[in-house]
Amino acid sequence: MSAAAGELDLIRRIRRRVAAAGARRGVTLGIGDDCALLRPRPGEEIAVTTDLSIDGRHFRVDLHPAEAVGHRALARGLSDLAAMGARPIAAFVSLGVPRDLVTPGRAGNSWVSRFYDGLLALAREYGTPLAGGDLAESPVAMADIVLVGAVERGRALLRSGAQVGDSIYVTGLLGGSAVGLEKLAGLDRKPQRGRKPAPAIPKRLADALQAHLYPRPRLAQGRWLLRHRAATAAIDLSDGLSTDLAHLCEESGVAAEVDASQLPIAPGASLEQALDGGEDYELLFTAPNPAHMPRTIAGLPVTRIGRMMRRSANRPQVALITPQGDAQPLEPRGWQHFA
Amino acid sequence: MSAAAGELDLIRRIRRRVAAAGARRGVTLGIGDDCALLRPRPGEEIAVTTDLSIDGRHFRVDLHPAEAVGHRALARGLSDLAAMGARPIAAFVSLGVPRDLVTPGRAGNSWVSRFYDGLLALAREYGTPLAGGDLAESPVAMADIVLVGAVERGRALLRSGAQVGDSIYVTGLLGGSAVGLEKLAGLDRKPQRGRKPAPAIPKRLADALQAHLYPRPRLAQGRWLLRHRAATAAIDLSDGLSTDLAHLCEESGVAAEVDASQLPIAPGASLEQALDGGEDYELLFTAPNPAHMPRTIAGLPVTRIGRMMRRSANRPQVALITPQGDAQPLEPRGWQHFA
Repeated sequence: MSAAAGELDLIRRIRRRVAAAGARRGVTLGIGDDCALLRPRPGEEIAVTTDLSIDGRHFRVDLHPAEAVGHRALARGLSDLAAMGARPIAAFVSLGVPRDLVTPGRAGNSWVSRFYDGLLALAREYGTPLAGGDLAESPVAMADIVLVGAVERGRALLRSGAQVGDSIYVTGLLGGSAVGLEKLAGLDRKPQRGRKPAPAIPKRLADALQAHLYPRPRLAQGRWLLRHRAATAAIDLSDGLSTDLAHLCEESGVAAEVDASQLPIAPGASLEQALDGGEDYELLFTAPNPAHMPRTIAGLPVTRIGRMMRRSANRPQVALITPQGDAQPLEPRGWQHFA
Repeated sequence: MSAAAGELDLIRRIRRRVAAAGARRGVTLGIGDDCALLRPRPGEEIAVTTDLSIDGRHFRVDLHPAEAVGHRALARGLSDLAAMGARPIAAFVSLGVPRDLVTPGRAGNSWVSRFYDGLLALAREYGTPLAGGDLAESPVAMADIVLVGAVERGRALLRSGAQVGDSIYVTGLLGGSAVGLEKLAGLDRKPQRGRKPAPAIPKRLADALQAHLYPRPRLAQGRWLLRHRAATAAIDLSDGLSTDLAHLCEESGVAAEVDASQLPIAPGASLEQALDGGEDYELLFTAPNPAHMPRTIAGLPVTRIGRMMRRSANRPQVALITPQGDAQPLEPRGWQHFA
């Protein structure tokens, strides 16, 4: 990572905050050198994931509070580790921001500082030290998050392990993030000159927006599935069930059927939001024997929503069984890049 | 990492090219799952670095050939591994690009495809498989490169180990990249409507631009220094000697003197370009006994350019000794973010 004199001050402040956050187990060398140094335990392999968040595409500076942007960026990476059954070792964040977002606002804190507030709060809670990153001026705010985790060798939960006949499960509720985004976008905000950072969220709405602004990566559930060898395949629901289940089918070489009537739909969400909304960061996984699956994992409800099928020219890769019992193709209508 | 249906095609093509590139030693699971899985060898720790490159800041779509942008992005990360004495295990690239850069140009290849041409060519040469990444639409072209390497436990070359009395060395030549950038910017190009991707470089200029467009990360030299326990501290010259030496002094708690007359200045470069130019990606390192330092390391000349001094209120942190024997402060005038 590179850092020039002009940004040294900002990096020093971040480094102090990271040091104060404690939790450096596994990190032998953190921010400040050419690389960070990490130590996995014997018998582990390393899991690495990178996720790009861009203003106007994955978040909006004028809509999302800066703390939520930091939280959500880290949550995306942690959720990828959860889907592998990995434990986090360290996070890295490359941040590109327009100059005005480094300038302290009226409340005294810059957008960048508030971004780190949100990111570091989640990092602390999930025992994930920030071990490095990069910082540059950019015409558009963007953050690339890298998560490095560790997983027992040969034991990681993959997308490619689902078998014909397996049941399909999800953790938690679906569509809550889409409902929150809708509410957030509908907030009665005064027209702003230019693209000013979003104001704070009114308290009466904070709960309703929680699933969207501060999603909870399912690391404990992923670890449980790995430890109990309870899942044949897993993926996290970042793009939306319809899209992520298609990925899982693709990688496993199988087809799937989802029962619309079984979906654990979040309060206020439509069926469409539950299927296509995305950013719920729940786990979607497959397992052979429903009798062996508990109703909750690490305190979170688990719901059986369908089954894996043999691929066939006569049926869609993913089918939705309507409450009337009809089967219809479930097209991937979740998050699309360059669609 | 996340990927939706619309980008699956592009990702499939990249995955095929990466698979064709071979060299997957250490990568147990590559592109296509929630995380990549990597296996270091016993007794190694993991080195991780992230580097952000942004259009208009670190490169210019309308000036740099796309292949060079890909090469340079990867070279920055490999150079950070070199500075630690680490060997590369895998690279990850998060790419954000405007939609038109995904569209094939007149020659048939899109900017993104040519970016990967350059990146994968260097990756193959340095035995570094591309193991994952992210891809998203962005109003500005940007690439965040993550390098994961491995280094023998407790043996990494750090910025913080320089001692008073150590000699200061650099590999190769300084200022060559700055000269190349100057030539590139001065190329007589027809005014372009909008920001079209840069045309190919005329053959007569290719050699002169090589140091700028296709820098060579010094991995073999870093590994040699580590194996022979020959360096007390090291950093790579990404921001420029004046800035990077200041970082090294800062982390080591010492001061430095550089002899202007000893600098290995690249043909055509000025003293200023050698001191402040940046992006040479040579190694800057310190070692106690000049008698033990070879003239070349892994085929590359090594030059003694100064010495580490005790910090004192009476002298600057970094001083430049002019050919006339005067000492003057060497301010960090290299690459600055938010300066």
